[in-house]
Amino acid sequence: MRLVMKFGGTSVADIERMHNVANHIAREVAAGHEVAVVVSAMAGETNRLVNLTRRAQITDKHEYDVVVAAGEQVSIGLLAGILQSKGIAARSWLGWQVAVHTSDAHSAARIRSIDAGRLQTELAAKRVAIVAGFQGVSGGVSGGVSGEDEAMRVSTLGRGGSDTSAVALAAALAADRCDIYTDVDGVYTTDPNMVPQAKRLAQISYEEMLEMASLGARVLHTRSVELAMAHHVPLLVRSSFASPAEDDIIGTLICDEDDIMEHEIVSGIAYAQNEAKITLLGVDDKPGIAARIFGPLAQGHVNVDMIVQNISPDSKKTDITFTVSQDELTRALEVIKAHEKDLGIGSVNTAENMAKVSIIGVGMRSHAGVAQKMFDELGAENINIHVISTSEIKVSVLIDADYAELAVRRLHAAYGLDAPA
Amino acid sequence: MRLVMKFGGTSVADIERMHNVANHIAREVAAGHEVAVVVSAMAGETNRLVNLTRRAQITDKHEYDVVVAAGEQVSIGLLAGILQSKGIAARSWLGWQVAVHTSDAHSAARIRSIDAGRLQTELAAKRVAIVAGFQGVSGGVSGGVSGEDEAMRVSTLGRGGSDTSAVALAAALAADRCDIYTDVDGVYTTDPNMVPQAKRLAQISYEEMLEMASLGARVLHTRSVELAMAHHVPLLVRSSFASPAEDDIIGTLICDEDDIMEHEIVSGIAYAQNEAKITLLGVDDKPGIAARIFGPLAQGHVNVDMIVQNISPDSKKTDITFTVSQDELTRALEVIKAHEKDLGIGSVNTAENMAKVSIIGVGMRSHAGVAQKMFDELGAENINIHVISTSEIKVSVLIDADYAELAVRRLHAAYGLDAPA
Repeated sequence: MRLVMKFGGTSVADIERMHNVANHIAREVAAGHEVAVVVSAMAGETNRLVNLTRRAQITDKHEYDVVVAAGEQVSIGLLAGILQSKGIAARSWLGWQVAVHTSDAHSAARIRSIDAGRLQTELAAKRVAIVAGFQGVSGGVSGGVSGEDEAMRVSTLGRGGSDTSAVALAAALAADRCDIYTDVDGVYTTDPNMVPQAKRLAQISYEEMLEMASLGARVLHTRSVELAMAHHVPLLVRSSFASPAEDDIIGTLICDEDDIMEHEIVSGIAYAQNEAKITLLGVDDKPGIAARIFGPLAQGHVNVDMIVQNISPDSKKTDITFTVSQDELTRALEVIKAHEKDLGIGSVNTAENMAKVSIIGVGMRSHAGVAQKMFDELGAENINIHVISTSEIKVSVLIDADYAELAVRRLHAAYGLDAPA
Repeated sequence: MRLVMKFGGTSVADIERMHNVANHIAREVAAGHEVAVVVSAMAGETNRLVNLTRRAQITDKHEYDVVVAAGEQVSIGLLAGILQSKGIAARSWLGWQVAVHTSDAHSAARIRSIDAGRLQTELAAKRVAIVAGFQGVSGGVSGGVSGEDEAMRVSTLGRGGSDTSAVALAAALAADRCDIYTDVDGVYTTDPNMVPQAKRLAQISYEEMLEMASLGARVLHTRSVELAMAHHVPLLVRSSFASPAEDDIIGTLICDEDDIMEHEIVSGIAYAQNEAKITLLGVDDKPGIAARIFGPLAQGHVNVDMIVQNISPDSKKTDITFTVSQDELTRALEVIKAHEKDLGIGSVNTAENMAKVSIIGVGMRSHAGVAQKMFDELGAENINIHVISTSEIKVSVLIDADYAELAVRRLHAAYGLDAPA
């Protein structure tokens, strides 16, 4: 089997933890697998480097990338050295050595392609490739008038980009699986801090995982899940703090929907607190009005989530309700105030301290009455629903934040997600 | 004019000092010069990284180099960003980007060649090139059966290698001068801490500078001076702490002997304390005996300095005297003891607390009586000479350490080196 293993900053925070990581790798090598490893910078190191660029007031993203990419360079060298000391053949690979080609959007670059040739040779020779996460190179395309390569510059993928590095590498190497080692042992049906009965999911589809992102259990970067989905790379989320000797796979496998034998109707309950609701009353009911409202909000960097428009056929006015994060409420209201007359807004209502609760599951597609059950359960608890929004595999409701915990617990039990006592 | 400017770790120890460095660079750019800059890691950073490799018990020099080269990556990015913030076009260059090709002797690699093409273009476009010192790449030679490049690995030149990087870059770019910014404002006729009358030399030849290395004023790495001599790169040693507004060149120019108009007979007085003398009495006087004594000492990593052999034509025995650093005396005696019978050594005398005092000057070549004057001056102070050794441009004597300061002061005055009162 060919494996990509990814370890984040807390997993390689010091030499002792790197030894633990090396033992995880040693287990997979001993099992006869071909192994490539993607590593983040040691915990705290990227922050230190970013701080230096701030104090130096660096504005050139190219130079920012040169500075912050140094963190991964240190961790890959150390980890390769530690593996060698355990008698395991290994070498470090920087972004330009692989090479990982990215876009020119320095500090938030996107991976365009990965030259897999050299690493293929390494893996075939049973040498572990320790690859720097988060970094690549822009430029470097052959051709042009001079026939010379365009100069390659160090680029980075933005914070948390190591997950994306790992998935992209797994796709390029046609790896059988990409194991993401993290500080939790998998993806849960809901936040275990809120619901002690929450269970670890053995499997979950990419689509569900993407909807779960708002769960607050930010186990994986959305971008890396999207990339895994596009390239059909099975992702295994597992704990780096578990004993490396343990080779039973404990974790959550994120994979194609078709690879999951039996679907629960609802796989998990997500929630987001600190939401605010804005209602624009008496808005001119004209074509294009939504675009004229939400355009300025987007330009003002306000993230709008749920949107509901009440259609009133008997009037030339309509009401539009939407939600934003509570942090962005003031900014949103400023933007609206600036466009108030222009948009013919009658008045504005706001409500704070709201929470969004969502049920997520691909099984919903083939089952009727799933949403109705949700409304019934909340009604039975006398919880008022302010806004409803639905997608193919998710139903979200906006409720008073005070009832969020009660709602999540009730729904978790109602959809049969509670772990056996 | 085309300039290479080199700044060491203390000059870029923090963001504030980097601003000072940027002002030095800005002055040269404003003067219309083409400027390439070589920078070390921020003070303390290389030590921190080396410590990490020790704690990780890294033995692979390739991985050691990957880790320690990260320090320069941070400083070039920061300095390039700071220059940009002052409105000066600049970009950073890593070893592999230039590229600086080195030997495979990782952690102590030697520069083989530097591709100057890209930097030439940069300089012609009046963009300051900020180049990482101390690092390069091994491998990367085109050809071979596959037609593919051999993989390039990050290499480092060993501690203090940034001076060598700067001189090699100046040679590759055919720079008019290489300015080495340091924490002293030049090379002095002798240690100013010992002799307050010591003067800064305006000029000194490469040969003299190499002999001065033992002065304890370790201003420049020997290797970089040798390289500058081989490629005729004029080196200017100057202070990075001087006001960057000051554009009068205050410093010491190290250049070809022929470029110095008027030579002093003696340019400087060097001294080395903590020397020990070893005399082997009654050694078999046979061909090859010296090699048989000093071979084992070299293998035992004992650095032998002055060597004197008394030829005694009337006997089959001879006496051999040599000096070593006091730190290495015990080790040297252990080596000798192990080979005592083998070499037919009669007995061994040792003397500690010795000092070596040297007069240095290319003018000696054309002037007679320079050494005699030295012996006369020391004799007048009743200073006993234990060993004498001479080269074309240096006369060294071994004396009791107690008289070292007196000897240096007397000789400094006698050869007319004292600054006017």
